[in-house]
Amino acid sequence: VYRIGIINVTGYIGMEAARLLAYHPEFRLTAVTGRSAAGKRLGEFLPHLGQFDLTITEEIEDSVDAVISALPHAASAEALLPHIQAGTPVADLSADFRLKSAETYAEWYGREHPAPQLLADAVYGLPELHRDDLRATKIIATPGCYPTASILALAPAMREGLIEDDVIVDAKSGISGAGRGLDLKYHYAEANESVSAYGLSGHRHQPEIGQELGLLREAPQPSVTFVPHLIPMTRGILATCYAKLRRDITLERLTALYEDAYATHPFTKVHASSPGTKLTYGTNLCLLHPTVDQRAGRLVVVAAIDNLVKGGAGQAIQCLNLVFGLPEETGLRLPAVYP
Amino acid sequence: VYRIGIINVTGYIGMEAARLLAYHPEFRLTAVTGRSAAGKRLGEFLPHLGQFDLTITEEIEDSVDAVISALPHAASAEALLPHIQAGTPVADLSADFRLKSAETYAEWYGREHPAPQLLADAVYGLPELHRDDLRATKIIATPGCYPTASILALAPAMREGLIEDDVIVDAKSGISGAGRGLDLKYHYAEANESVSAYGLSGHRHQPEIGQELGLLREAPQPSVTFVPHLIPMTRGILATCYAKLRRDITLERLTALYEDAYATHPFTKVHASSPGTKLTYGTNLCLLHPTVDQRAGRLVVVAAIDNLVKGGAGQAIQCLNLVFGLPEETGLRLPAVYP
Amino acid sequence: VYRIGIINVTGYIGMEAARLLAYHPEFRLTAVTGRSAAGKRLGEFLPHLGQFDLTITEEIEDSVDAVISALPHAASAEALLPHIQAGTPVADLSADFRLKSAETYAEWYGREHPAPQLLADAVYGLPELHRDDLRATKIIATPGCYPTASILALAPAMREGLIEDDVIVDAKSGISGAGRGLDLKYHYAEANESVSAYGLSGHRHQPEIGQELGLLREAPQPSVTFVPHLIPMTRGILATCYAKLRRDITLERLTALYEDAYATHPFTKVHASSPGTKLTYGTNLCLLHPTVDQRAGRLVVVAAIDNLVKGGAGQAIQCLNLVFGLPEETGLRLPAVYP
Amino acid sequence: VYRIGIINVTGYIGMEAARLLAYHPEFRLTAVTGRSAAGKRLGEFLPHLGQFDLTITEEIEDSVDAVISALPHAASAEALLPHIQAGTPVADLSADFRLKSAETYAEWYGREHPAPQLLADAVYGLPELHRDDLRATKIIATPGCYPTASILALAPAMREGLIEDDVIVDAKSGISGAGRGLDLKYHYAEANESVSAYGLSGHRHQPEIGQELGLLREAPQPSVTFVPHLIPMTRGILATCYAKLRRDITLERLTALYEDAYATHPFTKVHASSPGTKLTYGTNLCLLHPTVDQRAGRLVVVAAIDNLVKGGAGQAIQCLNLVFGLPEETGLRLPAVYP
Repeated sequence: VYRIGIINVTGYIGMEAARLLAYHPEFRLTAVTGRSAAGKRLGEFLPHLGQFDLTITEEIEDSVDAVISALPHAASAEALLPHIQAGTPVADLSADFRLKSAETYAEWYGREHPAPQLLADAVYGLPELHRDDLRATKIIATPGCYPTASILALAPAMREGLIEDDVIVDAKSGISGAGRGLDLKYHYAEANESVSAYGLSGHRHQPEIGQELGLLREAPQPSVTFVPHLIPMTRGILATCYAKLRRDITLERLTALYEDAYATHPFTKVHASSPGTKLTYGTNLCLLHPTVDQRAGRLVVVAAIDNLVKGGAGQAIQCLNLVFGLPEETGLRLPAVYP
Repeated sequence: VYRIGIINVTGYIGMEAARLLAYHPEFRLTAVTGRSAAGKRLGEFLPHLGQFDLTITEEIEDSVDAVISALPHAASAEALLPHIQAGTPVADLSADFRLKSAETYAEWYGREHPAPQLLADAVYGLPELHRDDLRATKIIATPGCYPTASILALAPAMREGLIEDDVIVDAKSGISGAGRGLDLKYHYAEANESVSAYGLSGHRHQPEIGQELGLLREAPQPSVTFVPHLIPMTRGILATCYAKLRRDITLERLTALYEDAYATHPFTKVHASSPGTKLTYGTNLCLLHPTVDQRAGRLVVVAAIDNLVKGGAGQAIQCLNLVFGLPEETGLRLPAVYP
Repeated sequence: VYRIGIINVTGYIGMEAARLLAYHPEFRLTAVTGRSAAGKRLGEFLPHLGQFDLTITEEIEDSVDAVISALPHAASAEALLPHIQAGTPVADLSADFRLKSAETYAEWYGREHPAPQLLADAVYGLPELHRDDLRATKIIATPGCYPTASILALAPAMREGLIEDDVIVDAKSGISGAGRGLDLKYHYAEANESVSAYGLSGHRHQPEIGQELGLLREAPQPSVTFVPHLIPMTRGILATCYAKLRRDITLERLTALYEDAYATHPFTKVHASSPGTKLTYGTNLCLLHPTVDQRAGRLVVVAAIDNLVKGGAGQAIQCLNLVFGLPEETGLRLPAVYP
Repeated sequence: VYRIGIINVTGYIGMEAARLLAYHPEFRLTAVTGRSAAGKRLGEFLPHLGQFDLTITEEIEDSVDAVISALPHAASAEALLPHIQAGTPVADLSADFRLKSAETYAEWYGREHPAPQLLADAVYGLPELHRDDLRATKIIATPGCYPTASILALAPAMREGLIEDDVIVDAKSGISGAGRGLDLKYHYAEANESVSAYGLSGHRHQPEIGQELGLLREAPQPSVTFVPHLIPMTRGILATCYAKLRRDITLERLTALYEDAYATHPFTKVHASSPGTKLTYGTNLCLLHPTVDQRAGRLVVVAAIDNLVKGGAGQAIQCLNLVFGLPEETGLRLPAVYP
């Protein structure tokens, strides 16, 4: 049994990592940090985690076998640095190790990268694309919630050269994706019974999507128009992805292409009909439904995930399973909480 | 004061027409029909309409000055025929008079058009595009809820030749758009906390969008990829529309183009930021937010409406105002119910 | 036409007062204040009120015929004082003038009453109980949202001596009742899919309920156990009220008692079945459903209102109608926004 | 490992039993029935249960070690009869074995009891009250969702003689409690943004509450006024329970009384503050918050559960653990899905 520490357990992603570890037979949560709540019992601050017998500390004090960080970018790399230097495997849920280029990081995050020398060692934590590399790394750059859905939706078509290098991702996210901070936009009375787009002048998840799709083929990075939307629900992302087809394809062939692409991946599945996000509630699943608008010659793929699980904490655990040589789905075969 | 009859007041669009007429100083609701509820007092069947002193009948019995039909397609044209023949102005909220071509109708609705000889007399009830014709018609083909948002979002750019003739509409709708019929999909426990796409093999609102956008310029109808989504909320549509730009344009120029296009239209406004549908709750507004993805050379326009008002009953009343020579906004200047 | 000023238009109750005035034929909104937004156009700060051509100011600068205050308690009395001294009718939506006793005020609000000399002149703004007095006052103490529902539910039975002087109010409120301030409790992701009780050690609306029920009969104030609950919806209060019967009564007699009690009151109605709050959405209605648990010898009355309208801004306008000698329902006959 | 069969897996309670069994180390789901879906793969009909390799059948065909029935009353006893006669332990989630008296059953359910001879062998499946008996029975009468919360909230006070024998339960339930059947009341657009009471003329869960509370002390059954409410959320019950105190008690003593009463029960806990139902989402927990209205001399206890887990399928599994001599919490230590 490996001892796991979570840095910043008090945000939605951090507490979800703790929740999921309750099901894991090989990982044991032994340390949790959180600045505002340091000194409190975990179950006192987060009652739903009361079954863990732990006190929140400022830093991870005792030795652990792996660290999951749910800090914001920059702070995360900083906090992980000593663990990385000590040779401890880490799963970073911030953006710090996702982009291969420190320049792109600086452009989108408005500051120098805190540890550019480590970027080459980090592996983008999407097992469907980088499973072998993940088995060999100690720095997991867990993808953002939007990129997980978007890349899984488009990767098989992009790799096959089926689509133009100009894609659109129209993504719909539940409000937990915005985090636990307070803002009038997330006040129940403002967010309920309303849908809105945001990030129209550019969202930080866009370069990740471009980078990973670009690695799938020998050509410049595709152009990505990415528009996220806020949906009146707590959890879930639905990404509807559009791209012009470069050649005709039947729905049967397309479905087969996607099924083949993910045949060996336990959590990413082609769904026979258009999936609702509820089918992934609380799970590490990504449900895909590829289809063709034959009139317009366009690929349309829908991807549904739970933004906090496959879009965050679950994926981090999936990657850690690989790092430790465990079966990929260990502790993650959870049926959706439905309805 | 004009006497108005509503056919099929018992569905969401019909009852919304009645609700809105309560505010209208020149229209008086004098007749309501509904098969299942015939014989009942309106306020008994629909308590929120109890202030109307009316009994639901099977057919409109007394003379009225205009008829609003909220029946499903085919049934609607049939029920309106005698009124049309009697010279009474009608606003049809079904699809029966929207498409100019009886062939296209047959193709999408799977049956012969019930009154093809009347198609030439009907005017598509979008005042922003057909205001003058609406003043002169007696057959209003009120647009569908999705086309209203989609066409208003794209019309200025399409008319100017700013965009390619290949557009994408990713639309998000509250569940009242699906009507009052029972289906497991609309059961609260199934629809809540879930988003899903539907109509991926083609939705009947697509040809309307193509037809109306095609009329704006001398060229074949544009190709339209239209994907509607079900959102866990009661009212509201947000249409996010995408098209490749044919030439560069600054955000300032684009905004000015849209403001000019709708300067004389009281309900369609350019919104300074990305609007939430809640800002249109219960109103006849369409809020537009045009923007440019400069990296991808793409126009992105967001449109927000209340699907039952500007996307249905409100628009029908707006058109009837024009038919009767009243100021367009008569009875419709309702601030949103916010929050 | 009377000119109305709203103090603190930027909270939910203040903005709702503005929204409702858009429908009022005899009242015109001519001044709006709000500290944080002073200097901004009303429609810029609150887009749904864009049809008002007004700038938010720090204080009401121009002469008005009546003032509605939506400030918190203490601040409200202070801001209203100059208007009261100038002889301008005021409708206070805070708690400042609701309790007859300055001692009770001090006990529940933890501070001396800011203007105890005015308490005798104020009238509790519940027209169903104090209509004649309201026609003769210039200080309206608009009731809290919970007391409106609770008192209307219990008054007929209490006045008749039908029930013991020990009542329970179990109230369920939408989240707009908590105001527009930020708190983790009202974050969408925390409030959604959850119900909770609060104020279990005493809620400030309790003494109002006791005071008003006590005035209905010659006896000490009844004991009131009042437990409010937070419900995952934006608007609406449902108050379920319980009291032991002092004598047997049939359901028919009980219904008649309630119908008689409110026969001349346009907004408070006995509803034939158990009402959902949605039937009052956006309206000034109070829907009552009195019933008897014959096994237990207990009265059970359900009351449904919109907390921001009959529970706040609408009731203030209803009272101002009385003050100005207008028909009570002027500008308030709005059918519910349903669904 | 014991083989478990679920009768009527297609309703919400049945499918929840299947979901929970996925976590159970000693129970294996080996048979599922469902009339409408017979012949289909479980994952085809209920995609969130796709990880079970099972086909839905009309009846349980192969030998199982225990049966869980989620059929409606009457049908359930009928379907369970052969299994009971074969000596197989059964957990019935319908009302058929809950009431000790066949007369009371006939009165509330409008028909003769289908197997009155078995009533004496059945044990009411609330381990907090009947743990020892459950270890020795083969017929588990799993309580209704409302009674679970209500009885657990009131039992310690009732057993101690702390309260009068006249209690009120004001219960708030998410809509999954109404089952998966179609009804306009549960249409999303009707149920959303609305709260309503129902069952005001008597709800079938009332006699269960009276029976079980009555067994706790030597006196006639207490009088129970029970009013359920429909809340716009999917899962969760909050029961707010009221009773007059027979003697003074401090909050500290009361809290200690409740903590002692449930000290050895793993799922029922005194919560330090008023709990939201979300803290029980997807779990077998019952969170209690007892308090005193000292002014009125009244006990007020709030209980929160997940209606489908502790209020249904989870409790059935908890009881089966006892029947099979397993630790009570086996397979049920699931942290809440929060947020």
